[in-house]
Amino acid sequence: MPLKMSRDELQTFLVKAFPQVSDDFEVLTVNDAQITVRMAVSDRNLRPGGTVSGPSMFSLADVSIYLAILSRIGPKALAVTTNCSIDFMRKPESGRALVATARLLKLGRVLAVGDVLIYSEGGGQPVARAGLTYSIPPERA
Amino acid sequence: MPLKMSRDELQTFLVKAFPQVSDDFEVLTVNDAQITVRMAVSDRNLRPGGTVSGPSMFSLADVSIYLAILSRIGPKALAVTTNCSIDFMRKPESGRALVATARLLKLGRVLAVGDVLIYSEGGGQPVARAGLTYSIPPERA
Amino acid sequence: MPLKMSRDELQTFLVKAFPQVSDDFEVLTVNDAQITVRMAVSDRNLRPGGTVSGPSMFSLADVSIYLAILSRIGPKALAVTTNCSIDFMRKPESGRALVATARLLKLGRVLAVGDVLIYSEGGGQPVARAGLTYSIPPERA
Amino acid sequence: MPLKMSRDELQTFLVKAFPQVSDDFEVLTVNDAQITVRMAVSDRNLRPGGTVSGPSMFSLADVSIYLAILSRIGPKALAVTTNCSIDFMRKPESGRALVATARLLKLGRVLAVGDVLIYSEGGGQPVARAGLTYSIPPERA
Repeated sequence: MPLKMSRDELQTFLVKAFPQVSDDFEVLTVNDAQITVRMAVSDRNLRPGGTVSGPSMFSLADVSIYLAILSRIGPKALAVTTNCSIDFMRKPESGRALVATARLLKLGRVLAVGDVLIYSEGGGQPVARAGLTYSIPPERA
Repeated sequence: MPLKMSRDELQTFLVKAFPQVSDDFEVLTVNDAQITVRMAVSDRNLRPGGTVSGPSMFSLADVSIYLAILSRIGPKALAVTTNCSIDFMRKPESGRALVATARLLKLGRVLAVGDVLIYSEGGGQPVARAGLTYSIPPERA
Repeated sequence: MPLKMSRDELQTFLVKAFPQVSDDFEVLTVNDAQITVRMAVSDRNLRPGGTVSGPSMFSLADVSIYLAILSRIGPKALAVTTNCSIDFMRKPESGRALVATARLLKLGRVLAVGDVLIYSEGGGQPVARAGLTYSIPPERA
Repeated sequence: MPLKMSRDELQTFLVKAFPQVSDDFEVLTVNDAQITVRMAVSDRNLRPGGTVSGPSMFSLADVSIYLAILSRIGPKALAVTTNCSIDFMRKPESGRALVATARLLKLGRVLAVGDVLIYSEGGGQPVARAGLTYSIPPERA
């Protein structure tokens, strides 16, 4: 299935649609099989001890699948998250950005399902994994 | 099982341990059966259209179960979230705070499990539901 | 919201639609707020040590939400499970039936969401909890 | 990390520990990175229309991660499932066996986390995905 949005188009869309958070996220690569997204880690993402907060990792998983969906269906649709199941497996390394690798496993008429692995940048073992479902609303005529 | 921390003690703990986010959260009630926590909604929690972001709702669910655990075991332990499965069911009402009602279903030696319903303040139908697992590390001697 | 199927109608439907498993399940009560379903435990549901298997508890959670949906929309629709997140919290008591208490939290146009607590019959503490999502296909004309 | 149990040893263990279900499952391959397990589909796994039931797919996911854990820690431990989040994405093909590909993402002191993709045998697209957590009890002296 050909991509409808390139890496640059996804990044531009993110800046326009989510100005509050787009500084944090950078689309590194996107292809037919997967997308990788980097999240810079700033003070507001941190918990005591310098570790990245759970909501911040959730946020990265959520954005990654969202962008994977847009790369296939284009910027016009307003997909919304309906379910996320996330496992926090290891403490992210202090002071490091996070990188997510996301796969779209199903892109149906009304539901899309994907999964995500999150790593500390440069790290070999995933710090979190997640499965997400998005609802894709019907196009308005 | 008697509570080890009152509403005020939980609120004070939150301010000390999570200064970055404690302004957002207010413990409304806590008893043996459940805890209710309010999250003020500010600009940074919003998405286009005025709806509250998924990560913000995740954050409220996470804090609510964390505080429910502390109310039973006291402020000394460092519990960490290991899993969260969250369903986003309805769009929160624009400009309204969120209120979570959380129950602790299991408080074991190493794992605690709880579930949460989230409402727009004053609203009758839940906007999200979540189940969470926390790992409780062994006490240091 | 009025019920479209009574306890007896649900039980009759179960026998017709799922002859392979309907002997195991009995609808105990159904009303606007919740449904309770009993699952007899036989040898094929057991694991070494006499405990009920995870798939059997999953099955009970799944059937309970399915029947809760049918009680609201009637027997005509073919709803399918799209997601289940289940926590196994305690070992079920050996040789006891299981009883599930299920609530429908959302019944939308295309998705229904519910949650379930499962107890050993007569037991005070839940052995499992689950959240499930069903997809409701559009009616055929 | 070296394997502590080979494919044949896992299969033999399964037959001894789970005589009720072991006929259904066959370990196809196991290595450091993943395990593949085949589930034969018989009448009792079927739903109206010939599709495989949700509990059967749950069962395959559960067994696959269980065997992946045993391949690393050996046959002595009694690991128990504490959480499973499963997405049913496509209808399995009628009359086909299912094949699961499972990865162990974390093997900690007390918790193990893995994920699974399930396919109809010979099929190119996954019919289900799951993330599972197991609790590993401490060894008895």
